[in-house]
Amino acid sequence: MDANESDGIIRCAHALADAARPETLRLFRQAAALEAGAANKAAGGFDPVTEADRAAEKAMRDILARLRPQDAILGEEFGNTPGTSGLTWVLDPIDGTRGYIAGTPTWGVLIALSDETGPLYGIIDQPYTRERFEGGFGRAQLSGPLGETALRCRPPRPLSEALVMTTFPEVGIEAERRAFEAVSAQARLTRYGMDCYAYALVAAGQVDLVIEAGLQPYDVAAPIAVVQAAGGVVTDWQGGPAHGGGRILAAANPAIHAEALALLSGA
Amino acid sequence: MDANESDGIIRCAHALADAARPETLRLFRQAAALEAGAANKAAGGFDPVTEADRAAEKAMRDILARLRPQDAILGEEFGNTPGTSGLTWVLDPIDGTRGYIAGTPTWGVLIALSDETGPLYGIIDQPYTRERFEGGFGRAQLSGPLGETALRCRPPRPLSEALVMTTFPEVGIEAERRAFEAVSAQARLTRYGMDCYAYALVAAGQVDLVIEAGLQPYDVAAPIAVVQAAGGVVTDWQGGPAHGGGRILAAANPAIHAEALALLSGA
Repeated sequence: MDANESDGIIRCAHALADAARPETLRLFRQAAALEAGAANKAAGGFDPVTEADRAAEKAMRDILARLRPQDAILGEEFGNTPGTSGLTWVLDPIDGTRGYIAGTPTWGVLIALSDETGPLYGIIDQPYTRERFEGGFGRAQLSGPLGETALRCRPPRPLSEALVMTTFPEVGIEAERRAFEAVSAQARLTRYGMDCYAYALVAAGQVDLVIEAGLQPYDVAAPIAVVQAAGGVVTDWQGGPAHGGGRILAAANPAIHAEALALLSGA
Repeated sequence: MDANESDGIIRCAHALADAARPETLRLFRQAAALEAGAANKAAGGFDPVTEADRAAEKAMRDILARLRPQDAILGEEFGNTPGTSGLTWVLDPIDGTRGYIAGTPTWGVLIALSDETGPLYGIIDQPYTRERFEGGFGRAQLSGPLGETALRCRPPRPLSEALVMTTFPEVGIEAERRAFEAVSAQARLTRYGMDCYAYALVAAGQVDLVIEAGLQPYDVAAPIAVVQAAGGVVTDWQGGPAHGGGRILAAANPAIHAEALALLSGA
């Protein structure tokens, strides 16, 4: 891909993130509106979908229809739209809907461009804090309330000194929880509840490992692009490609990745 | 206390929060500096203390020495300073030091003014997101990136519909964890990892319950003031005063407080 095309993709991705911000913020911490807008998507499970989620994906799809009609779209809310370019926009308008409904500032808008090999470029955008983590096509940076900074994963340290994140303490099924705990028990510190923001913190050099299970492709595409651009490694729990979702291991560097993988790969 | 004195206290509290912001942000997400500045305060335990923590408390104490020399100070880093007014400033320069070191935006600067009955006024300040939650002396408001909004706890709903927060899944000792899980198991959703920010979200009408154990007086004074000013109820797990620290139950309203208390009080 030439620089002209990648520049166009980067501009388009930022336009998508800009369009999603007001749609996600319009209902953020608006308790009454959220109650009215929430629906219980998965029968029997708690999987809140807000009006904001749908409005933000709709706003992004409108832009893609205008700027990039040749590309396919995989969106969390509205599914697959085929394309002809071999490129796919992977969109999760609100990753961390539970965090969103709780009012925390650690949900995010996920935007990635993938080809058949996986994500090439991605944005993790936090509309409330005005932080935008991006990576790919030679870029790895955060634009936020303190200005622009380069994203660079932290250097190797032993697992005993490492900081590990996951979203839920139960992680996934029982075997997945046990595998996670094998890593967590050896780490210096484990923190919960950050959704996609945890991957952004790996890219920002703050966190050594993020370990999750049960993820969807739209949950992981942008995080993979951002973490890899910052020098990190993202695979499944067998060391294979992660962009299909499922069990994810995001690591700040190959050394800590190998140490965690050895503990997870038996699960 | 007359309006003139309470206005002076409010102005002073904001001056403290303003002074703490740059001191806490100077080292936030500065990996190398943090490593150098961190010390292991509690022998055998992981209790990071950063240079930022000390610098922020120092900055606040300098202001108090000038503006309010008659008041006592209880600070997390530098302990007790006696006073003559019967009023005590209760300061935690960085509540959530683990979150701070992890780079999350959910730690906070806690500032409260207490008399012998407990906290009269408090601020939960998040320097990175520029959010300031305050409550007391007739005020209950958030100043943040989206402007100023009133803080008001959410109305009653059954525990089965409630959102519960705590910082660590293990909560405290084994009996405390079991008591927490008795509440959590009946709640709609449990989220972790927010430190003082969880109390701010109760005041903001987002969260029904925060349940924690093993807290210090400086961890709870400002949260108590902010939650109570927004209409919530904060007690220990027996329904008694909470400002001494220990086991804390912060609830959005008396009804959900009673429902949680019935499950916790046996612990």
